[in-house]
Amino acid sequence: MTYELYYWDGIPGRGEFVRLALEQAGADYVDVVREEGGMARMMAVLKGRANGFVPFAPPFLKDGDLLVSHVANILQHLGGKLSLAPKDEAGRLEANGLQLSITDFVAEIHDVHHPIGVSLYYEDQKDEALRRAEDFRDERLPKFLGYFERQLRKNGKGEIHAVGDALIYVDLSLFHVVEGLRYAFPRAMATAEPDYPMMVALHAQVKALPRIEAYLSSGRRLAFNEGGIFRYYPELDRA
Amino acid sequence: MTYELYYWDGIPGRGEFVRLALEQAGADYVDVVREEGGMARMMAVLKGRANGFVPFAPPFLKDGDLLVSHVANILQHLGGKLSLAPKDEAGRLEANGLQLSITDFVAEIHDVHHPIGVSLYYEDQKDEALRRAEDFRDERLPKFLGYFERQLRKNGKGEIHAVGDALIYVDLSLFHVVEGLRYAFPRAMATAEPDYPMMVALHAQVKALPRIEAYLSSGRRLAFNEGGIFRYYPELDRA
Repeated sequence: MTYELYYWDGIPGRGEFVRLALEQAGADYVDVVREEGGMARMMAVLKGRANGFVPFAPPFLKDGDLLVSHVANILQHLGGKLSLAPKDEAGRLEANGLQLSITDFVAEIHDVHHPIGVSLYYEDQKDEALRRAEDFRDERLPKFLGYFERQLRKNGKGEIHAVGDALIYVDLSLFHVVEGLRYAFPRAMATAEPDYPMMVALHAQVKALPRIEAYLSSGRRLAFNEGGIFRYYPELDRA
Repeated sequence: MTYELYYWDGIPGRGEFVRLALEQAGADYVDVVREEGGMARMMAVLKGRANGFVPFAPPFLKDGDLLVSHVANILQHLGGKLSLAPKDEAGRLEANGLQLSITDFVAEIHDVHHPIGVSLYYEDQKDEALRRAEDFRDERLPKFLGYFERQLRKNGKGEIHAVGDALIYVDLSLFHVVEGLRYAFPRAMATAEPDYPMMVALHAQVKALPRIEAYLSSGRRLAFNEGGIFRYYPELDRA
């Protein structure tokens, strides 16, 4: 069974959290929009011209007849099938809770450069973005990173994992959050990282996984850029 | 087994989405923080002084030894146990996807009055809020309401439901979204509602459920106010 991932081409975006799980599992998947005719196929689903459920936005995943929308929903679904989720109910609920905190964090990271509206260009909300970026660096970044750091410390013995004693999809997502923050806020992260040694170590541990290493150096990995969630606007970073 | 809901007292907030499911199911639950000593019990969990998983923020639910965080995770968990979720896998995935779109909508509704940061007062970000409110009313409100309207129309025959042919937790959450929007944006909603007849009808249908009717007129129901997600600031509504 080939999984079909539907997401915009050209940016890692929210699709990247799903790609990392599929890649680490060695799953058979296609990144539909990067294939010929793929954009038209995605738009047909989003416009309700295909049969079945209509998602609010990409990413969504087709798994045979099932259509799964939203990153946390997709990862929860794939987690069980690809052995990237805790096996016990308590662990699965914790993993989904953590992934939903990552979801909130990612939305806030996005809104640093779009505090007024997604329908406006960054340049048209730059004054507001400068103010929001200051609040983000001073308040939200330490709040979220500190939360995940404490969870890793509480859970981890030896190998670092968010829940339980094996690699799960939440670990992969936390890796990508660190990747993205380093791209978007290099100076703020350089200052902050000593306070989050478990996050830094988890990032290194995931990056060294053979399948992730192979993926990161492949053409399937898209580079960060100023069309995505994690954008590098020097004026929004720490001075 | 008594469910324990942990959420701030004094506002309906995100806890209300969980309350509505517990109330409609006639479940045995306590609203912990509204009991004597409850605030200290919630803070002990949030500060990591209790055993077990530490949630990022309220609401969270204790179900025996299980601790479930985030509204969509709680509702997915309760949905199966309280017969408020679709019985088939495709339906459960769709319901969770819809609830996650509601989650995003609720976050955007909140950020209309807090576009710069939750650590600042509304009065300290009012200029930015005025601008964001315009974008919200013109772009985001119709985008989200239109999406849910199309889903109800596509799914519904006779009784209105988000997925399948029985009442599910998503229906209850959509009811509360309409309730809250009518409180926060009365003029914008009065203008918009004729475009969303299924949403209006679903709201009326849920409101007339005997257990919901009894709950809404009970002391357990907290009134909307300017400490919550849905706040009435006349200047943010349509002129």
